[in-house]
Amino acid sequence: MSFTIENIREARERIAPYIARTPLLRLQNLDSYLGCQVYVKAECMQTTGAFKLRGAMNKMLSLTPEQLKNGVVASSSGNHGRAVAYAARMLGTKATIVMPNSAPAMKLNAIKALGAEIVMCEPSERHAAADRICEETGAVLVPPFNDPAIMAGQGTAGLEIAEDCPDVDVVITPLSGGGLLSGVATAVRTLCPNARVYGAEPAPLPRYTVSLAEGKAVTVPQKPTIADALIGQTPGSHCFPVVQQHVAGTLPVDDAYTLKAMKLLLTEGKLLGEPAACIGMGAVLQGLLPVKPEEKVCFLVSGGNVGFEQLRVLDDVTL
Amino acid sequence: MSFTIENIREARERIAPYIARTPLLRLQNLDSYLGCQVYVKAECMQTTGAFKLRGAMNKMLSLTPEQLKNGVVASSSGNHGRAVAYAARMLGTKATIVMPNSAPAMKLNAIKALGAEIVMCEPSERHAAADRICEETGAVLVPPFNDPAIMAGQGTAGLEIAEDCPDVDVVITPLSGGGLLSGVATAVRTLCPNARVYGAEPAPLPRYTVSLAEGKAVTVPQKPTIADALIGQTPGSHCFPVVQQHVAGTLPVDDAYTLKAMKLLLTEGKLLGEPAACIGMGAVLQGLLPVKPEEKVCFLVSGGNVGFEQLRVLDDVTL
Repeated sequence: MSFTIENIREARERIAPYIARTPLLRLQNLDSYLGCQVYVKAECMQTTGAFKLRGAMNKMLSLTPEQLKNGVVASSSGNHGRAVAYAARMLGTKATIVMPNSAPAMKLNAIKALGAEIVMCEPSERHAAADRICEETGAVLVPPFNDPAIMAGQGTAGLEIAEDCPDVDVVITPLSGGGLLSGVATAVRTLCPNARVYGAEPAPLPRYTVSLAEGKAVTVPQKPTIADALIGQTPGSHCFPVVQQHVAGTLPVDDAYTLKAMKLLLTEGKLLGEPAACIGMGAVLQGLLPVKPEEKVCFLVSGGNVGFEQLRVLDDVTL
Repeated sequence: MSFTIENIREARERIAPYIARTPLLRLQNLDSYLGCQVYVKAECMQTTGAFKLRGAMNKMLSLTPEQLKNGVVASSSGNHGRAVAYAARMLGTKATIVMPNSAPAMKLNAIKALGAEIVMCEPSERHAAADRICEETGAVLVPPFNDPAIMAGQGTAGLEIAEDCPDVDVVITPLSGGGLLSGVATAVRTLCPNARVYGAEPAPLPRYTVSLAEGKAVTVPQKPTIADALIGQTPGSHCFPVVQQHVAGTLPVDDAYTLKAMKLLLTEGKLLGEPAACIGMGAVLQGLLPVKPEEKVCFLVSGGNVGFEQLRVLDDVTL
C-alpha cells in the first residue's frame, strides 16, 4: 500500500483529542535576518514539547487493547521517548524508553516524571536494545520514524501548515530518520503542489544527502552534533522512497549555524527552540538555500525541549 | 469627549499598515502551573518587540506634516522610545528619546540603531527633560501613556483579544501609567461584558493600587523593580478614570514572582518575555488572583526586549 495524504487525514481524526493544533506564526521581525517572509510552525508548543506526540499517538491508537497490555517500548534520544511515555500514561499502559547516554538531562527527567522506565545505552546500540526488551517482555515497539503510522502522525503538522498558509513557497523541516519530513512533504506537496519542501540535517550526519545522491539508503558513521534530536545514521526504509518522491532537496547544516539560528529565534523571534528545531533557519543563515524577500518560507520548529542551563551554549554565539 | 471603543476602532484603521496582528496563543503546557486555561497575547512578537508601537503610531499618524516637521520627543524606559524611533523613521522625521539611566543596554542600543538621538537622565527627571527639549526645538512630545491617542492605539491589542477569544473570562495586562490597561479594558469590557480585566503592577511601585483605594491619582515614591518597563510613579490623568470604570482590580506583584513567571514562560511556554511582560503570570503564581481550571485567562505579554545576557537573572530562579 502506498503512503498518501489519506493516511495523514485518518491520523488527524485519530489523534485530534490528544494533540495541540500548534500555531503557524508569522515572525516578521526575522525577515531581515533570513531574507524572506518568515513563518514558523511552532511544534515547540506541542504537548510534550515536540511534534513527536503526533506520530506516537497515532501508532499507539492503532494498536488493539490486547497489543497494548504488555506495555510499549521506544528507543529515543528524548522527544520520541517523552511522547511515548505521555501516550502510554494517557492510554493506561506501561512504557519503557531506551535512551542513548548522550541524551540531555532535561529530556531524561521529563520522561521519568511521566512514570516511564528508562534504560540507558550507547547511541549505536539503542535500537537493538529496544528489540531485545520487546522479545523478553511481550511489549510492542513504537518505532521513532520507520513506520507508516508514525509518518502519518507527523504528517498532520504538514496538513496544518497547508491549511494555515496555502500559498506557502517553501517548507523546511529538521531531518533525521525521515518520519517528519516524509509525512510533512506528502501533505504539503499534495495540497500545495507549487511549494518546495526541504529537509535540513546536521552536516556531521548527512544520511539523507548521501543516500539521495546514491539512490539508496546508506548508513553514515555516528558523529556528535549539537542537534541531539537528529542522530539517526540511516534513512528509514519506509521514509526514504517518500522523501525521494516529494522532497526538493536536503541541506547539511554546520552546528555553528544551527546555534546562530537558535539564538536568533530566541532573541529576535522570542521563541525557544531546541538546537535540532532551529536547523532549518541555520540552513538559510548558512546560505545553503537561496530565498527571496517575497517568498513565504515556513520553518518547522520541531521542539523546545532544552534545559535552561543548556542556553549557556549560546553565550559566545554572535548573530 | 469620553474615551470609547470607537476611538480604538479608528486607531486600528490608522495603524493597520504598520503593526503586526500578533497571535493569541493557547499555551496548554502552562495550564497545570497556573491553574487555568492559559492564553497569551504575544506582543513580544510585535514590530519593535513590544505593544508600544500601537500607541506611538496612532499618535504620530494623528499629527499633521507641519507638526511632525521639527521632529518628535519621547521620554521612555525603552520600549516606548523604540516605538517612537521606529515610527519617526517610517514617517520621515527625527526622534529624540529621553531615557532613565536605569534602562537596559539592549533597549538603548535598539533605539540608537533606528537613528534616534538619545538623552540620558535620572528616572524621576525624564518627563521634565522631554518637555524642555520640546520647548527648545519646537518638536512634538509623544507621551508614553497619558493621551487618548496613545490609549486608543494600545487598546487595539484588546480588540484583537476580544475577536480571537470572545468567551475569555479574565484578561491581565501589565500596568504602569495605565495607557495599555485603559485601552485594553475599554475594548474587552465593551465586546465581552462578562470578562474581568486586571492590571498587574510591581509591588514596589503600587501607584494604581494606592490610587484606586484613595479614589484619586496618587504619586508613589520611585523604587527599583526588575520590571524595568513599569517604573511610572503616577497614574495618567486620562487613564485613571477609564481604569476606575472598567477594571476589576489591580495586582501588586513581588519581583520574585515576576521572575518565576518569566522562567516558566520561557522554559515551559517556549516564549521569551521581558520581566514586565510576565508580571501578570507572576500575579497568578503569587496567588493574588484566584483562577479556576475551566477559566480562559489571557495574559498580555507586553514585550520581549530582553538581552540574552540579561537571562542570567533567571539562573537561580526555581519554578
